[in-house]
Amino acid sequence: MAPKCHAEIMDDHLELLEQLRAGLPDEALITDPDVTASYAHDMASFCEAGAPAVVVLPRTVEQVQHIMRTATDLRVPVVPQGARTGLSGGANASDGCIVLSLVKMDRILEISPVDRIAVVEPGVVNAVLSRAVAEHGLYYPPDPSSWEQCTIGGNIGTASGGLCCVKYGVTAEYVLGLDVVLADGRLMRTGRRTAKGVAGYDLTRLFVGSEGSLGIVVRAVLALKPSPPQQLVLAAEFPSAAAACEAVCEIMARGHVPSLLELMDRTTVQAVNKLGHMGLPESTEALLLAAFDTPDPAADLAAVGELCTAAGATQVVPAEDAAESEMLLQARRMSLPAMETIKSATMIDDVCVPRSKLGAMLDGTAAIAARYGLTIGVCAHAGDGNTHPVVCFDAADEDESRRARESFDEIMALGLELGGTITGEHGVGVLKKEWLARELGPVGLEMQRAVKQTFDPLGILNPGKLF
Amino acid sequence: MAPKCHAEIMDDHLELLEQLRAGLPDEALITDPDVTASYAHDMASFCEAGAPAVVVLPRTVEQVQHIMRTATDLRVPVVPQGARTGLSGGANASDGCIVLSLVKMDRILEISPVDRIAVVEPGVVNAVLSRAVAEHGLYYPPDPSSWEQCTIGGNIGTASGGLCCVKYGVTAEYVLGLDVVLADGRLMRTGRRTAKGVAGYDLTRLFVGSEGSLGIVVRAVLALKPSPPQQLVLAAEFPSAAAACEAVCEIMARGHVPSLLELMDRTTVQAVNKLGHMGLPESTEALLLAAFDTPDPAADLAAVGELCTAAGATQVVPAEDAAESEMLLQARRMSLPAMETIKSATMIDDVCVPRSKLGAMLDGTAAIAARYGLTIGVCAHAGDGNTHPVVCFDAADEDESRRARESFDEIMALGLELGGTITGEHGVGVLKKEWLARELGPVGLEMQRAVKQTFDPLGILNPGKLF
Repeated sequence: MAPKCHAEIMDDHLELLEQLRAGLPDEALITDPDVTASYAHDMASFCEAGAPAVVVLPRTVEQVQHIMRTATDLRVPVVPQGARTGLSGGANASDGCIVLSLVKMDRILEISPVDRIAVVEPGVVNAVLSRAVAEHGLYYPPDPSSWEQCTIGGNIGTASGGLCCVKYGVTAEYVLGLDVVLADGRLMRTGRRTAKGVAGYDLTRLFVGSEGSLGIVVRAVLALKPSPPQQLVLAAEFPSAAAACEAVCEIMARGHVPSLLELMDRTTVQAVNKLGHMGLPESTEALLLAAFDTPDPAADLAAVGELCTAAGATQVVPAEDAAESEMLLQARRMSLPAMETIKSATMIDDVCVPRSKLGAMLDGTAAIAARYGLTIGVCAHAGDGNTHPVVCFDAADEDESRRARESFDEIMALGLELGGTITGEHGVGVLKKEWLARELGPVGLEMQRAVKQTFDPLGILNPGKLF
Repeated sequence: MAPKCHAEIMDDHLELLEQLRAGLPDEALITDPDVTASYAHDMASFCEAGAPAVVVLPRTVEQVQHIMRTATDLRVPVVPQGARTGLSGGANASDGCIVLSLVKMDRILEISPVDRIAVVEPGVVNAVLSRAVAEHGLYYPPDPSSWEQCTIGGNIGTASGGLCCVKYGVTAEYVLGLDVVLADGRLMRTGRRTAKGVAGYDLTRLFVGSEGSLGIVVRAVLALKPSPPQQLVLAAEFPSAAAACEAVCEIMARGHVPSLLELMDRTTVQAVNKLGHMGLPESTEALLLAAFDTPDPAADLAAVGELCTAAGATQVVPAEDAAESEMLLQARRMSLPAMETIKSATMIDDVCVPRSKLGAMLDGTAAIAARYGLTIGVCAHAGDGNTHPVVCFDAADEDESRRARESFDEIMALGLELGGTITGEHGVGVLKKEWLARELGPVGLEMQRAVKQTFDPLGILNPGKLF
């Protein structure tokens, strides 16, 4: 069947568009299929994406309620979206759906230094919020690598993490309360704006990481920390991943609290040097970056440097100042873009294992790469045991693509075997839904589905994701 | 009707006891009504409590599963209990129920310094765990005032807090994963043992604070922190609660991170002196305790002391050493027992307001006390805005009891008016269930009930609590 033309698609969705228009201004609706197609998917490979009936860009809570009432009336699926920087297909459109983009609801409503909270709409960009609160001496820690693009609503949907987590935790720890538009258009407030609160079930946390499948977040109360001192970074070169992981375990077992503890393997280091001319040491098998934002970071780095040397580091270089530290962080942040230049496509795993199993995870990943004859570079939030093996492949090569997909899956199997999880911070989306079932087991899966059914009895919220 | 004798009660519950005995050793069942009566309620005033049919004390997960299967078969309500130190009636028995006490499941299964986790059974006493992990250089922060008696399972049920929360947060932040026996006896594992993980909905957090109404926690993976340096405490005297609250706001707005920030009003100070001969300054209207467990606590205390003076403190006394610090903490921990000596009974509120509203909350509470002609002493986790107004009354005096109950409620109404919550850390139980409905609103309440229905369709898990 030939693809439908614009007019034909319009006919199919006439009633839907008419009802939506009754409560939305014209500029909040996009129906041009060339444009709506650009909203069809996020940044994940191997994830199906359909053709949306319409993209809506509401600016108010009332507009979101109107959209959800319409969707419920007509039983039309709704796919909520932030900046579509996700890596699991969680924001991918399904055929005939309403894509509900929250990017126009982008106001910071309040920042309170005394209460250490911010109240925001879901479309606020992570970096915009981070900079705004910094002006008040405050710090919003979650820093996914897409922080210059991704939105707080998207971060909440995927419970996303970043480099900060080893000290400051993931997005979930910073969401105190939510306003949520339910599937039928009713508005529900969860949680609180106080430091503590235990009134009833924690529905706030239930929505964090629910990938838009339980309701539409239209407002969030976020916890903030005071701005920490400028962090200082150290780089340590190791002759093997095992030695680097031993250092990580020692650092954490001795009670250190680094503000980041990151690992890049040789493949990653070489790719970063090639893309960014960063001058990282290419002879190293594993480069460990540790940082402290404590009152005396140099002293903490010295102690950690000694542990690295004891674990076999061949070179330990503390940054001399903030500029050198920033350069090392830039190199780390460049890891994913750099790996993307190796082949035409990548798949990014997100397996998190107990820290004590990090060495086994890295060795096992290397063995999988060898077995499949693929380049799999690994960068890792090592302090959290959260690895991002990046499977590089040529999308035009069918056999290599198949091997990429299989190795991607084997890495998740290895993670589960080691007592880990298939996703530390990227979410399940479309990409890992079979694996979610394996991780949860039959009882867990059944209860998760029951929760979904409770909040979305018609199954119109981001269908086909998670389960 | 005269109370039934032992034999009569046994007849009523014959089938239940027979089925329970099929999967439990004799010593795990208590049917003597004199003994079961002692399991009827927790430490809250004004909360109804029924007569249990039986108290069961399982030692294994399989035994808990057997109990829940039996309860489901026979539609018998189950009331889970820890140490019954709760303050909201959440562990109170209902007539003919099975009291399911988890105190015999008290093993610490694992402590890992590298992974910074402990795996425990629900009956482990908070202080026992705290001391056990301290031997490994680790720290389990949640420290409710009943920490020498209360169990981890009970702490999870109520999401309890303590003095540590201003820096370290409540129990919820430390629960990574759970094994839960569902209402029908099936075993479900939630969450993870890794530092991060976002696979599916956060059911772990849903169970934390659910007061035994969704399932029975039989095992928990807890996050640990490295042991911090010994904290040093400062005491500051203020001529008014308002001045003390101004100091609290300044301390937090300036980015300080105290390890505790507590307030005791004049009534509390006098009661503590009377009970414990602590020699606290009785002329003060509000005594503020601040502590730091940083590398240089004396320097941090000096900075905070200056802020106190600027806010009007008449006296600022930093402790000279750990012993003096411990003495001040003991005085604070004595607040509730001391207030209990003022009259024959107390009701303890647990209102948490945004920190910026703490002054208004304390002034409003004083006005309520005056209006009702009652003694209401206040101690507060001031850094969190979490106040514990303690209403003192003579339980034999009907009119005073009525006024106590009414003022207790008015304090919650004031908290909600100020943007706060009716419970910061004690839970809802029986005592505040009408107030939960007011805090949540109709949509929130309906969805919370729907979640309850999803996990407990027969309504056998701790019925009559929360809603």
